[in-house]
Amino acid sequence: MQLGMVGLGRMGANMTRRLRAGGIAVVGFDRNPGALETLVADCSMVPALSLNELVDKLSPPRSVWLMLPAGEITEAAIAELSFLMAPGDILVDGGNANYKDSVRRGATLALRQIEFIDAGVSGGVWGLENGYALMLGGSGSALRQLDTVVRTLAPAPDRGWVHTGPSGSGHFVKMIHNGIEYGMMQSYAEGLALLHGRGDWNLDLAAITESWRHGSVIQSWLLDLTAGFLARDQDLAAIEPFVADSGEGRWTAIEAIEQGVSAPVIIAALMSRFASRDGQDYSARLLAMMRQAFGGHATLPASGE
Amino acid sequence: MQLGMVGLGRMGANMTRRLRAGGIAVVGFDRNPGALETLVADCSMVPALSLNELVDKLSPPRSVWLMLPAGEITEAAIAELSFLMAPGDILVDGGNANYKDSVRRGATLALRQIEFIDAGVSGGVWGLENGYALMLGGSGSALRQLDTVVRTLAPAPDRGWVHTGPSGSGHFVKMIHNGIEYGMMQSYAEGLALLHGRGDWNLDLAAITESWRHGSVIQSWLLDLTAGFLARDQDLAAIEPFVADSGEGRWTAIEAIEQGVSAPVIIAALMSRFASRDGQDYSARLLAMMRQAFGGHATLPASGE
Repeated sequence: MQLGMVGLGRMGANMTRRLRAGGIAVVGFDRNPGALETLVADCSMVPALSLNELVDKLSPPRSVWLMLPAGEITEAAIAELSFLMAPGDILVDGGNANYKDSVRRGATLALRQIEFIDAGVSGGVWGLENGYALMLGGSGSALRQLDTVVRTLAPAPDRGWVHTGPSGSGHFVKMIHNGIEYGMMQSYAEGLALLHGRGDWNLDLAAITESWRHGSVIQSWLLDLTAGFLARDQDLAAIEPFVADSGEGRWTAIEAIEQGVSAPVIIAALMSRFASRDGQDYSARLLAMMRQAFGGHATLPASGE
Repeated sequence: MQLGMVGLGRMGANMTRRLRAGGIAVVGFDRNPGALETLVADCSMVPALSLNELVDKLSPPRSVWLMLPAGEITEAAIAELSFLMAPGDILVDGGNANYKDSVRRGATLALRQIEFIDAGVSGGVWGLENGYALMLGGSGSALRQLDTVVRTLAPAPDRGWVHTGPSGSGHFVKMIHNGIEYGMMQSYAEGLALLHGRGDWNLDLAAITESWRHGSVIQSWLLDLTAGFLARDQDLAAIEPFVADSGEGRWTAIEAIEQGVSAPVIIAALMSRFASRDGQDYSARLLAMMRQAFGGHATLPASGE
C-alpha cells in the first residue's frame, strides 16, 4: 500500500509517521523543505518537491491525502490535483473543510471520475500514539481501496473510524463533533471557574479534577488533559484569557440556524470565545454609558489602552 | 470497621452491597421494610427498625452515613440523630444537599461535638461495580476515622475520592460537578440533534457515536452510555422529550449569579431542561400573538390540550 501525503504540518507529519510505522509507503509534499527532510530522516518518507512530482511517484490507482489548512490553500491544491490525477484515483481531504465545500468538490471531481473522500480527523497531537478518529464521507468502493490506510491511522483497525455517507458527510460529522467539543470545554471551564471563584475555601482544583477522573459521571479525555495541566499550575496567571477558534464552531452555529434547531449551549460556547477576544468590548462600554445616562452610575477610565 | 447506613434506596442499597463486599459490617435502616429484607438476604446487612435502634447497634465512636433525599427528609434525620449520637461520633450526609445547608449543619453538629462530613457521591447505578466518586468536606481527623469506608466505596483505594476542605465544600464541589454534567449532556444532545436533523443523509448516529469513543477529543463516559442506548434505538420516538432536574444545576446557576461569574453554558443547559417541561409554553404563545399583532402572522390552534 502506498499513499501520497500533501501538507506535513503537525497533523500531516504525525500521520505520516503513523502510516510509515504501519508499513505503508508514503510520498510526501510540503512547501517547506525542512518538513520534507525531517520526515525523510525520521521514517524514510519519499519526498516530492511538487504536486506534479508527488503524483508521478505514485502508481495508479493513486491515493492522495491532503492535510492542509481549510479554505483557499485546500481549494488550490484540489484544483491542481484534479488535473494531475487520473480516473480511478482517490483524493482525500483530511483538513477541516466546510462540508458544503466538500459536497461541491465531490461533485466536481466526480465529473473527472476522481473519487473524493472528505475525512474528518480528530486526535490532535496525541494521534501519533493513540491513533486518529476518522469520519469518512464518500463512496464505499473508494473507502475499500483506502482500507489499509484507514485502519492504520485509526486507534485500532476495527475502531474509531466510521463511513458516514456520501461526500460532505464526513466533514459534516466532524463539524458537529467540534461543536460538541466547544460546549464540553466551556462546561468544564465555567464549573472550574466557579470552584476557583470560591476563594475563601482555596479549593485544590488539581486534586478535585484528578478525583473526578475516576468513577464520576463527568469522566472524559478532556478532563484527563485538564487535570494534567492543573496539576502543574492551577493559578493560570501566566495564560492570556484569549481563546481562538478555527471555524467548526461557527459552522455548527450556522447549521443550527439553517436547520431551525435550538442549540443554545454550543452557540453560547462560541460567543464566549468571541467575548474572550474582544479587546475593545464595545458592547460593555455601551452598557456602562447607558447606565450612566439613565442612572448617573459612574464609568471607569479605560485601563487597557 | 462498622457503618450505619440510613436510606436504602437505589444509591444506599448498592453502597451497602459494595461495603459488605469489602468486608465492612453495615447496620441499615430504611422506612421501607422490604428494602431491609432484601439487603439482609443479599449481603447479611444488620437491619435496624428505627434510627434509635441503628445507633444502639453501633459501637462508639459511631459512623452513620445518610443516603436520603435532600431537603426535609435529610433535615429531620439529622435533627433526630443529633440527639441520639454522642460526642466523637461521625455523621455523613451523602445526599445531594445544598452546600449552604451542609455548612449550617456542620456548625450545628459541632456544638454537640459530632463530626459532620458532607459527601458528594457520583457514579449512579454503575457505582456498585465501578465504585463511587466521593467529594468529602469536613475535618481531616473525621475523614481518617472513615478511611476504610471511603477507600471501599471509591473506585480504588487511592483514586476517585478527594478531601475538598471544611464542611460544605464536599457538596459544593459535587454541585459544580453536576453543573458541568448539565452542560456536557446538553452539548452532546444539541450536536446529535443537528446530526439527526440532517435527514437527507440518514446518518447512523449509533455508528458515529461508537466511532467517537475511540481516539476523538470528545471521548467520555457519557458518550459511552449514549452510544450504548443509540445502538439499541436511535429514533427515540418512544421517549417523551421531558428532562427532569434534581437541584444541583439550579444551585450552580445561583452560585454563578451570587459570585457574579459568567456561566452561560451551564445556565442555558438548565433553561433547556425547563423548556422541555413547559407544557404550557406561555412565552411561545405570547410570541405567536405578538407576531400576529404587529404583522398579521397566523397563529396555530393549540394541539396539545
